[in-house]
Amino acid sequence: MSILIKKVQLNNSICDIFIEGNTIKKIGVGLDLLADKVIDGSKKAAVPGMTNGHTHAAMTLMRGYADDMPLMPWLEKKIWPLEAKITNDDVYWGAKLACLEMIKSGTTLMVDMYHRFPFTAKAVDEMGIRGMLTHAGFDFNQRELSEIYKSDIEQFFNSMPSYSDRIKFAMGPHAIYSVSTQLLKWIRDFASNNHLRIQTHLSETHYEVENAKKVFGMRPVEYLKSIGFLGPDVSFAHGIYLSDDEIKILADYGCQVVHNPASNMKLSSGAKFRYADLKNAGVPISIGTDGTSSGNNLDMYEAMKLASLLGKVAWNDPTIWKAEDTFAIATEVAETLTGFKTGKIEEGFLADVCLVDLNRPEMTPNFNLISNLVYSASGNVVDTVICDGKVLMENRYVPGEEEIIEKAGKAAFNLVNR
Amino acid sequence: MSILIKKVQLNNSICDIFIEGNTIKKIGVGLDLLADKVIDGSKKAAVPGMTNGHTHAAMTLMRGYADDMPLMPWLEKKIWPLEAKITNDDVYWGAKLACLEMIKSGTTLMVDMYHRFPFTAKAVDEMGIRGMLTHAGFDFNQRELSEIYKSDIEQFFNSMPSYSDRIKFAMGPHAIYSVSTQLLKWIRDFASNNHLRIQTHLSETHYEVENAKKVFGMRPVEYLKSIGFLGPDVSFAHGIYLSDDEIKILADYGCQVVHNPASNMKLSSGAKFRYADLKNAGVPISIGTDGTSSGNNLDMYEAMKLASLLGKVAWNDPTIWKAEDTFAIATEVAETLTGFKTGKIEEGFLADVCLVDLNRPEMTPNFNLISNLVYSASGNVVDTVICDGKVLMENRYVPGEEEIIEKAGKAAFNLVNR
Repeated sequence: MSILIKKVQLNNSICDIFIEGNTIKKIGVGLDLLADKVIDGSKKAAVPGMTNGHTHAAMTLMRGYADDMPLMPWLEKKIWPLEAKITNDDVYWGAKLACLEMIKSGTTLMVDMYHRFPFTAKAVDEMGIRGMLTHAGFDFNQRELSEIYKSDIEQFFNSMPSYSDRIKFAMGPHAIYSVSTQLLKWIRDFASNNHLRIQTHLSETHYEVENAKKVFGMRPVEYLKSIGFLGPDVSFAHGIYLSDDEIKILADYGCQVVHNPASNMKLSSGAKFRYADLKNAGVPISIGTDGTSSGNNLDMYEAMKLASLLGKVAWNDPTIWKAEDTFAIATEVAETLTGFKTGKIEEGFLADVCLVDLNRPEMTPNFNLISNLVYSASGNVVDTVICDGKVLMENRYVPGEEEIIEKAGKAAFNLVNR
Repeated sequence: MSILIKKVQLNNSICDIFIEGNTIKKIGVGLDLLADKVIDGSKKAAVPGMTNGHTHAAMTLMRGYADDMPLMPWLEKKIWPLEAKITNDDVYWGAKLACLEMIKSGTTLMVDMYHRFPFTAKAVDEMGIRGMLTHAGFDFNQRELSEIYKSDIEQFFNSMPSYSDRIKFAMGPHAIYSVSTQLLKWIRDFASNNHLRIQTHLSETHYEVENAKKVFGMRPVEYLKSIGFLGPDVSFAHGIYLSDDEIKILADYGCQVVHNPASNMKLSSGAKFRYADLKNAGVPISIGTDGTSSGNNLDMYEAMKLASLLGKVAWNDPTIWKAEDTFAIATEVAETLTGFKTGKIEEGFLADVCLVDLNRPEMTPNFNLISNLVYSASGNVVDTVICDGKVLMENRYVPGEEEIIEKAGKAAFNLVNR
């Protein structure tokens, strides 16, 4: 299968893009190549598929179920009771809906953390996007839960050959307050032995840091360093409450941080994500939407705008989070974060390419494409999505979308009424 | 002309809506009425058209022209030099583009402040939405400029009978630092004598407040009170840096405040809009996008989410800015702010009705329509727009949109290259 995209805006010029198999093979002006499919790129721009650095895909089922509440009552009275009733089928349809929403807003790669891994993996595999998927780990210091988790992980890891190369298994301990030191160490070893990456929540709230100081006598990053957990294969979701010393440790170990502005704002977790300090220290940064139960949608275009605008106002500096940098950490960071060679439209990269419709009011005038994408667009500007060399959406239509919306909607109502 | 919308979700039930002329005539289940046009409302929700409480429509031409800069260099080096070269035709096409963008994101009423009033008014009149439009006033303490402005205002006011009832003339002094006391008093008198409303920028930056204290020996609201400027017909755009005393004065005089979260964030003007304090004092609040040169788009759905999320994180309270309240101040406030009897879907209100497509991933599940509208949707969920009883958009298509995008895009490039 080959695709030729003709006369599309790429950066600031017009060119053709030739895709063969799952790879961007050639980029140039007036490419004279035969292709199975030719796409007219006029009045469109080619942009990399976005990387959603942190989400809980199946939680689409809980969108709008509980809002405007403080974190702990929200979790204890609303989210956790619902999750106790969730089935394999719910996770499958929730993840399908999430993938559909991501495709329709130009995201082709996500890092996911949720329960019942095989059902998220099946959904992502079927939908055609990429996922670095984890099975969320909790043991709350209970040995029995810890053993169940280890056994699940081994089983899921061994099942990986049954999925396409678009699915990557990774380790997803929930957080230092919900996973024992013993299990964290086992997870670290399992990841090292099997060359897997790790993502965990870290320093999302001020309370979490104070609790770590009380329980471990150290701040969260210091604690993770002390148990040998850190490395360039570890990414931390949130990371709002980081000290100078912790940022230095993250940089020393090559750890990464995923910023989730919508969730951090909606739950009042904190505004002062230390973007400039992390960037200056050389810590790779990416952006995520978090789950739709807190961030409410999976639109990475919105997440770019939120990250940038929140950073500017929180630090009283309109010059930080420049549009080009924001766009880069939503796209180019993909390989560092997940190991998938994607996030750039260059020869040799995976063919994860979106076409943005420029013939829209919010994309007019087109003085600065990146500014329009970051500050004016929503994911709705994406007209065509190609992932792994296959067309997943054309003219904003994803085959089968009606069934997914219907089935996921029903699953959500059944879950709440169960 | 009459329109019957059949079986549409309104609040939490399914009903029919009958529009006759420019008014919502009847709402009920199974209405048996003949209509010139019948719209199938299944899998759709009827919501009021949004009210954009503060914008500078024609500045769409400057979208993406200058970002990520501090306020004063941005104004002095980028925006003002461009505005010095702007023509009548530019304003007309910029405002047409703005109206198109607003229609496509479900906004049917805007409060505008810009130069060359007749060309904005012509555009709004042609596009079919409502506008409370002002001619921006500046005199920088120069008598000559003041006289030109007064003469312009009289001329524009006298031209009003040539426009439709959807256009309302209002007074728009730019700000207390750019308009002399003498001209502010004249504007106040002109408004009172002719029953016009007033909107002006107020306390957008900390610097502005400090400057007022230095120049007038008072804070901005105290100064405006001292010159007899305040009343329930006055709305203030921004109003971030308000003291307790100033909030009490605003409440006493019935003044209104328009919050512009995107602009305030992007220019780092300030995060702590005193929503709860203003609300508790009884000051009517609305939301605006500001111009696209600072906020970059005119999507009021995005503005709702930004307002709510910024308020929650800035005040460290996830329970403020509840979805229902946010939705109300983007819709129901219309009559208080502008005098147009719109912003609610109730019998007797003006027929400014949007249909939202519920068959979309970001609107699924539909546990709470208002939550989905405020936290998950963008303006792209709007499928059909009716304003003043006329269909302006159907199936997301606005007749003539291609020409507007093309002409406005060209006008913007010509302006920059002039």
